[in-house]
Parts: sequence; C-alpha cells; structure tokens
Amino acid sequence: MSIDKNDGMVVGVEKSLRHIEAIIKQKGREILGDYAITPPQFIALQWLFELGDMTIGDLSNRIFLACSTTTDLVDRMEKNKLVVRVKDPKDRRVVRIHLLPEGERVIEEVIKKRQHYLEGVLGNFSENEIAFLQSTLKKLHDEMKEK
Amino acid sequence: MSIDKNDGMVVGVEKSLRHIEAIIKQKGREILGDYAITPPQFIALQWLFELGDMTIGDLSNRIFLACSTTTDLVDRMEKNKLVVRVKDPKDRRVVRIHLLPEGERVIEEVIKKRQHYLEGVLGNFSENEIAFLQSTLKKLHDEMKEK
Repeated sequence: MSIDKNDGMVVGVEKSLRHIEAIIKQKGREILGDYAITPPQFIALQWLFELGDMTIGDLSNRIFLACSTTTDLVDRMEKNKLVVRVKDPKDRRVVRIHLLPEGERVIEEVIKKRQHYLEGVLGNFSENEIAFLQSTLKKLHDEMKEK
Repeated sequence: MSIDKNDGMVVGVEKSLRHIEAIIKQKGREILGDYAITPPQFIALQWLFELGDMTIGDLSNRIFLACSTTTDLVDRMEKNKLVVRVKDPKDRRVVRIHLLPEGERVIEEVIKKRQHYLEGVLGNFSENEIAFLQSTLKKLHDEMKEK
C-alpha cells in the first residue's frame, strides 16, 4: 500500500483507537468496581483464563510487568483465593500459577459485562458492519502480535 | 439487530479490542520512554492539544482522575514547561491550563510515532480495508461517546 495515500486514514485509525482505548479503559474500571480485583489483576486473570497455567516469568511477559511486581500481584490474588501456585509434578522446581474456580467465575463475569457493554454500543451497527469489524480487528491484532 | 445472532461476533470484537488495547498500551509506553512524560501526562496533553485550554475540572473529567490528582499532574507538567496556568482575562477567578510550545512539540511527536507504528501494522491491509476500519472505528467511538 502507498503510505502517502493512506496517511489521512491512518491518522484517523490512530485517533479513534486512542479514544476508544480511553473509554474502554474507564468502562473496564467501572465494571471492576463491583469486584474485588484491580485492573492489573484483571489483565493477569484474563491470560490465565485464556492460556491456562503459567509460570511467573511467562505471566510477567504477558502483562508487561517486572517479575517482582507480578509476584506481588500473584501473592494478593492467592490470598484472595483467585489463584494458587502449583508445583509441576514432573519437575518440582517449576511453579505455575493456576486459576481457582473463584478466579474463573470473576473473570468470566467481568468479560461477560464487557461484552454486554459492547453489544449496547454496537446496537446501531448492521450485521455486516459487525462481521467486518470483528474480522478486521482480529487481523489487526494478528498483525500487531507479529511486530 | 438481533443480539443472539451476533453474540459470537460481539465476543470476538470484545476480545480483539481487549488484546489490541493491551498491545497499544505497551507500545505507547515504549514510545513515551524517549520523552520525559508519563502515560497520564500523555493523556492530559492529548486533550489540551485536541480541545485547547481547559480548566482543571474539565481536564479531570476528560482523563477520569480526581481533581487533586489532576492538579498534581498539572503541577509537574508546569514545572517541566509543558503547560502553563493562565487566568481568564474576563473572569480572573477562572484558571485554565494552556499547552506551551514544548508540550505541543512532545505531543505531536508522540502521536506521529503512534501513527507510524500503526502504518507498519496496517502494511498488509488493502486501501479498502483501512478505509472501512477508519470509518467503523470512528462510528464505534461516536456510539461510545453517546452511552
């Protein structure tokens, strides 16, 4: 593609994404207000929910926080019975973070509320628009993972 | 639209937006690493750049932070010559935050770098896809502002 030609469009995409990000962040905080978890805890639980058991190192890479900060985060979530540390039965030096039923319940509820919010926002979108939005955002996310 | 019918699509949109948000947030932090501003300062400068002079109250509403936190934020930015407090000549009890040339330079550079990052990510998108993405994200943002 010619970057020159698309300059104005990229400017628009960046601006919309920046503003959408800010609104979703705030909406996400409001939703978390009903739960005993913080925004970083939400991010961590979301990865454990999506990818399964993870070491502190893997988790800290995913949530872009230092290992020491991630350890503190996991300590608090363990205290609140959202996760538990489990030793790998094959190599007991390896410890993984495992999502407990209460952690799963909370993350599922929070994600459901986010989906419900988006359903409302997409009320004036046609089925085609939603389908295109879904596939294009998926492609955008896939490209971002590559970079 | 029938929400039932679009359930799976909304689930996909929420998931992609959540992951895109996390990547852009991290990318944004990396970009800010080259500048002497923090993520909340970036958000504040962005609004001053986009909407012009604002009172502390208006700014704190935009950035979803308490007035006291916003005051601290503005204090630090004023110290760094990014913004300045100015009294309204018609009503000197009203004080507005004004973007200084250095603040404008920083915010323009940071936004340009974010656009450049997105240009790279959109390299495999057709012109039509980018055009649709731009208009759909704009519509999504407009709908979000309404809710």
